[in-house]
Amino acid sequence: MKQFSDLLIEESIKKESVLVVGLDPQVNNMPNYLINRQNEKLNLNIITNAILNFNKTIIDVVHPYVVAVKPQLAYYEIYGSLGLQVLEQTISYAKSKGLLVINDAKRGDIGSTATAYAQAFLGNSPINGDAVTVNPFLGSDGITPFINESIRYQKGLFILLKTSNPSAYELQDLELKSGDLVYNALASLIKKLSSDTITGKYGYSSIGAVVGATYPNVAKNMREILPKQLFLVPGFGAQGGDTSNLKYFFNADGNGSIITSSRGIIYSYKNELPEKWETISKGIMEEIIEATVIRARDEINSVR
Amino acid sequence: MKQFSDLLIEESIKKESVLVVGLDPQVNNMPNYLINRQNEKLNLNIITNAILNFNKTIIDVVHPYVVAVKPQLAYYEIYGSLGLQVLEQTISYAKSKGLLVINDAKRGDIGSTATAYAQAFLGNSPINGDAVTVNPFLGSDGITPFINESIRYQKGLFILLKTSNPSAYELQDLELKSGDLVYNALASLIKKLSSDTITGKYGYSSIGAVVGATYPNVAKNMREILPKQLFLVPGFGAQGGDTSNLKYFFNADGNGSIITSSRGIIYSYKNELPEKWETISKGIMEEIIEATVIRARDEINSVR
Repeated sequence: MKQFSDLLIEESIKKESVLVVGLDPQVNNMPNYLINRQNEKLNLNIITNAILNFNKTIIDVVHPYVVAVKPQLAYYEIYGSLGLQVLEQTISYAKSKGLLVINDAKRGDIGSTATAYAQAFLGNSPINGDAVTVNPFLGSDGITPFINESIRYQKGLFILLKTSNPSAYELQDLELKSGDLVYNALASLIKKLSSDTITGKYGYSSIGAVVGATYPNVAKNMREILPKQLFLVPGFGAQGGDTSNLKYFFNADGNGSIITSSRGIIYSYKNELPEKWETISKGIMEEIIEATVIRARDEINSVR
Repeated sequence: MKQFSDLLIEESIKKESVLVVGLDPQVNNMPNYLINRQNEKLNLNIITNAILNFNKTIIDVVHPYVVAVKPQLAYYEIYGSLGLQVLEQTISYAKSKGLLVINDAKRGDIGSTATAYAQAFLGNSPINGDAVTVNPFLGSDGITPFINESIRYQKGLFILLKTSNPSAYELQDLELKSGDLVYNALASLIKKLSSDTITGKYGYSSIGAVVGATYPNVAKNMREILPKQLFLVPGFGAQGGDTSNLKYFFNADGNGSIITSSRGIIYSYKNELPEKWETISKGIMEEIIEATVIRARDEINSVR
């Protein structure tokens, strides 16, 4: 069995893409053909069924152009057990199309609880994928159990390091007595905890980090400190990250980062047809999404 | 509809208890009468069924002595949609016994994703409870959506501030240029974000914080900065917190904190009968848990 970093890099070479599409399904953004929002009998079964159909359509369209899909757990958890059933079906459908699955769960806990989360997302659980995002607020007690399970199952982690949202600075950029910022200290911790995992055919670690596309200077700096840790890079597209900034995320071999885009792709028909997206057909939706995902992939490749 | 802080304080007055029992079900810690771990046909249905029966037994025994139960999401998520079905059933069973439900989810995300998580745990979702734990690593972008939903649904939040685990210091205690530690800066942020929510009959906020029982000095300090924010206090019992330290968590009115204990209570039969816990009857299990939960409640009350 191949380790996650090798699998991911091999797929990105084969597909000539480092793009990841986020699966953040919201019924309010879906065309009428998928769900009739005026239906008074709208219930959890109807909603979760629409979400599954939406996800399958996205996967059908994007799978030749992206290396992975990234389900955002909140949009499934909100529907309880039925939502998780859709997640299970989405994950297995994505795998059947040759896609890697990165569960964007941002879980963080300690000890046996962290191990349970790691097993949920990386182990033999019904919702396991190929990698999971992890929140480091609890320190190495909260990270090590995920690393252990990731080694055990040859799966990947992306530890939040510097996120792309406007208020990220409130905690992550606090200036320390040492002169460093909090995220520098965190980068050192990630480096220490992942140092034994830089292995495999391509010499990358499967223990990676989340670094927002909105900070090119941070990217340069983090790339130096963590040259062989894979970065998951959100904030491209909808969150305002500039494509030219992305170049700092890649090593000379063109590897080292995967770039995620969610609503900029899956709801691209809303941008293209702001007046009449609700009434488009499946065919038009697919055409717009396909053109958008190809453009995003090519834009990213132009700076690698 | 009453706000969470009033509900919680009223229940704690009525029951003369500020104890919360964590529901962290693990089949490896359950007596044989609940599950036959040697069964070769052990499948998700058998496992999740045992978990539901275990939780119901715990709830039946502890409900007169505790104000709330605290399901730890990881132990349900590991079984995917079937696990969340058990969570739904556990939550509704606990509510039927008059217990408040605090989902220990430690979720943290931004924007519409954070709103989706908040709606999952506080809104009209199948897994909604009375309060949820939140991870603040993403700053106010990650906290405000939870606060908005908590006000909208009159529910509670407990934001991780200073956790009880040994490596919590790695991030939370980093010394800032200002002389403060990271958790002081976070306390100021929580104070700012929750300042308009100190209302209701008892004058407490429903936007609270998680402060570990292992740090009495931190408790004193945080109690001063956040006098009217409710604290959820883990680390009592199994994690080594000393009961006498708990006094710093309470205000003069005896309110201000709720104390959680999980495996120290729900698996107390393992401590009491280390050699033969696997073969105990339901009756013996119930007796031991009842004695333990009463003792914990009384110990905590003795320092309030």
